Amino acid sequence: MKPPFKRLTLIGIGLIGSSIALAARRKELAEEIVISTRSEATLDRARELGLGDRYYLDAAEAAEGADLVILCVPVGACGPVAKWIAPCLAPGAIVSDVGSVKEAVVRSMSPHIPQGVHFVPAHPIAGTEHSGPDAGFAELFENRWCLITPVEGSDADAIARLAAFWTALGSNVEEMDPVRHDRVLAITSHLPHLIAYNLVGTAHDLETVTQSEVIKFSAGGFRDSTRLAASDPTMWRDVFLNNKDAVLEMLGRFSEELAALQRAVRWGDGEALYKAFERTRYIRRNIIEAGQETPAPDFGRHVKEPGE
Amino acid sequence: MKPPFKRLTLIGIGLIGSSIALAARRKELAEEIVISTRSEATLDRARELGLGDRYYLDAAEAAEGADLVILCVPVGACGPVAKWIAPCLAPGAIVSDVGSVKEAVVRSMSPHIPQGVHFVPAHPIAGTEHSGPDAGFAELFENRWCLITPVEGSDADAIARLAAFWTALGSNVEEMDPVRHDRVLAITSHLPHLIAYNLVGTAHDLETVTQSEVIKFSAGGFRDSTRLAASDPTMWRDVFLNNKDAVLEMLGRFSEELAALQRAVRWGDGEALYKAFERTRYIRRNIIEAGQETPAPDFGRHVKEPGE
Ligand SMILES: NC(=O)c1ccc[n+]([C@@H]2O[C@H](COP(=O)([O-])OP(=O)(O)OC[C@H]3O[C@@H](n4cnc5c(N)ncnc54)[C@H](OP(=O)(O)O)[C@@H]3O)[C@@H](O)[C@H]2O)c1
Ligand SMILES: NC(=O)c1ccc[n+]([C@@H]2O[C@H](COP(=O)([O-])OP(=O)(O)OC[C@H]3O[C@@H](n4cnc5c(N)ncnc54)[C@H](OP(=O)(O)O)[C@@H]3O)[C@@H](O)[C@H]2O)c1
Repeated sequence: MKPPFKRLTLIGIGLIGSSIALAARRKELAEEIVISTRSEATLDRARELGLGDRYYLDAAEAAEGADLVILCVPVGACGPVAKWIAPCLAPGAIVSDVGSVKEAVVRSMSPHIPQGVHFVPAHPIAGTEHSGPDAGFAELFENRWCLITPVEGSDADAIARLAAFWTALGSNVEEMDPVRHDRVLAITSHLPHLIAYNLVGTAHDLETVTQSEVIKFSAGGFRDSTRLAASDPTMWRDVFLNNKDAVLEMLGRFSEELAALQRAVRWGDGEALYKAFERTRYIRRNIIEAGQETPAPDFGRHVKEPGE
Repeated sequence: MKPPFKRLTLIGIGLIGSSIALAARRKELAEEIVISTRSEATLDRARELGLGDRYYLDAAEAAEGADLVILCVPVGACGPVAKWIAPCLAPGAIVSDVGSVKEAVVRSMSPHIPQGVHFVPAHPIAGTEHSGPDAGFAELFENRWCLITPVEGSDADAIARLAAFWTALGSNVEEMDPVRHDRVLAITSHLPHLIAYNLVGTAHDLETVTQSEVIKFSAGGFRDSTRLAASDPTMWRDVFLNNKDAVLEMLGRFSEELAALQRAVRWGDGEALYKAFERTRYIRRNIIEAGQETPAPDFGRHVKEPGE
């Protein structure tokens, strides 16, 4: 079967870009993969890893003649990159992105998309704390959601082709309004990252407990947070700069609830604590049933399952 | 070789008690394992699982003639159980516990320990979010820390024997002052759990994002929190009731730092955000180097490593 796209151009070849490259190659989704990134060092590394067929520092050159262009750069860079490549986009091409925030990306990219080119924003909800072209792996998107957030006038056929692309990468695709996307992700991803950064930062600044004690005796809860807090600072800076309202809304609620828990601790209100701790259990059960998590105990190392 | 203990009595046979039972049996650390728990249902289940040699609902009967008694019950139950078993403790016996808080446990158990019995509190820093006798596994303590927090007048020989027991279970043993223990664990374990409960609770109460959206699109950060927030509510209620001061101290710092981050988000201060996100990375690197974590990406399912 002929690949569905002739030329796939990836602009930005970090964790997400390189994972798309590897997966698209394995699933034969493009006849040719063209890669562009800002720095020579990253471009050289992408070439060494054999992630694509051609390599350019100039994003516009890379985008020329492509029928699918995906921006895999931090959210704040999407507007400038769209502006850069705009003059070279082929009529009928699909331009997409993978940004973790959608409304701001739509706002910054839309004005640059030429007539006759189809802009279809998307966000694969899949990632790790690693970044750069070495971090990618072809299975990253398997059984993960990819949210497509069409904009006014998005071409139905272009949406369908991009959805088919992500489905072929292994994702479950769903459409969502960009504003709603940003709200949902604010609570399921952005706020948890902010909290993790804050927790690890708090531990870092204590005078009463030493750094080496924190590191040595870091229990499960803290270890998980250090993983999130090891994520790329540029990517996350851009997320918070570009999803301010939804993050502040969730953060306000979080702080309110935390004040109530703090009060229960201060007054030794065991009943309130028990009630607060009891009602959260079933959410996890539901997530496991939804197939987005395994129930296996995992406290920072892999526990062999019976029969594994 | 003869097992180092003749009779090991475990009072409480949930995650920690059953893991000790399985590991002690495998490593031949006791000639006989005696089990006691409060409810008939749990005792029956322990018997079905073959976790011990004898089973009692009466903790005092179970403790009789044991040379090592370990309380594996919630922190708040340690005092009452110590009082219950006190009259039956054999002279020279070692009494220990596994509570996640130490100063309060020392305060509540010490008065009940008879002359000639050695009280040596301990805390294995190992756990999962599961509880009950089915949750245990013999490898739980391998390569994990076990902190022993001797009290005034703790017998050096008894400390050494308990340390050897935990070393045989696979743990790295270290001594620490109970007050210091509670401070360290407040930041590495107790606060992270409180935060996780609070985060999942916040998501649960939102009106602007539905439960099913939270469950469906729960990204890595949130999924980790749901794991912590699925932990046993009784155990955690008791932790917060019994480590109030240290938890409130850490929580105060956490909230202060969070207010600063919130301000940076509100004012779009990218530099402040970047700086806050940058400095937390190396802590994880150090934890990995300390052998308490693997660098493998793990976003809720096991990713095969090359060569695995
Ligand atoms: N990481 C995740 O978990 C995850 C998950 C879903 C979506 N996303 C989204 O995916 C996108 C990329 O993330 P990633 O994790 O793949 O990042 P990454 O590994 O750090 O790679 C970023 C790529 O973008 C380039 N870049 C960085 N700043 C740029 C700028 N100002 N202008 C132009 N190019 C720039 C980098 O180029 P050089 O290396 O050449 O400087 C690199 O090729 C982001 O929008 C993020 O929100 C991330
Ligand atoms: N879970 C962890 O991650 C972890 C890690 C390190 C240390 N710890 C500490 O280990 C201890 C036990 O935790 P766990 O996870 O093993 O708990 P678990 O699985 O919930 O088991 C608790 C055991 O204690 C018994 N119990 C509960 N309430 C009691 C009461 N009021 N009086 C007497 N017995 C009572 C239960 O008896 P029935 O089932 O018969 O009611 C059960 O046998 C706690 O002190 C905890 O702080 C836990």
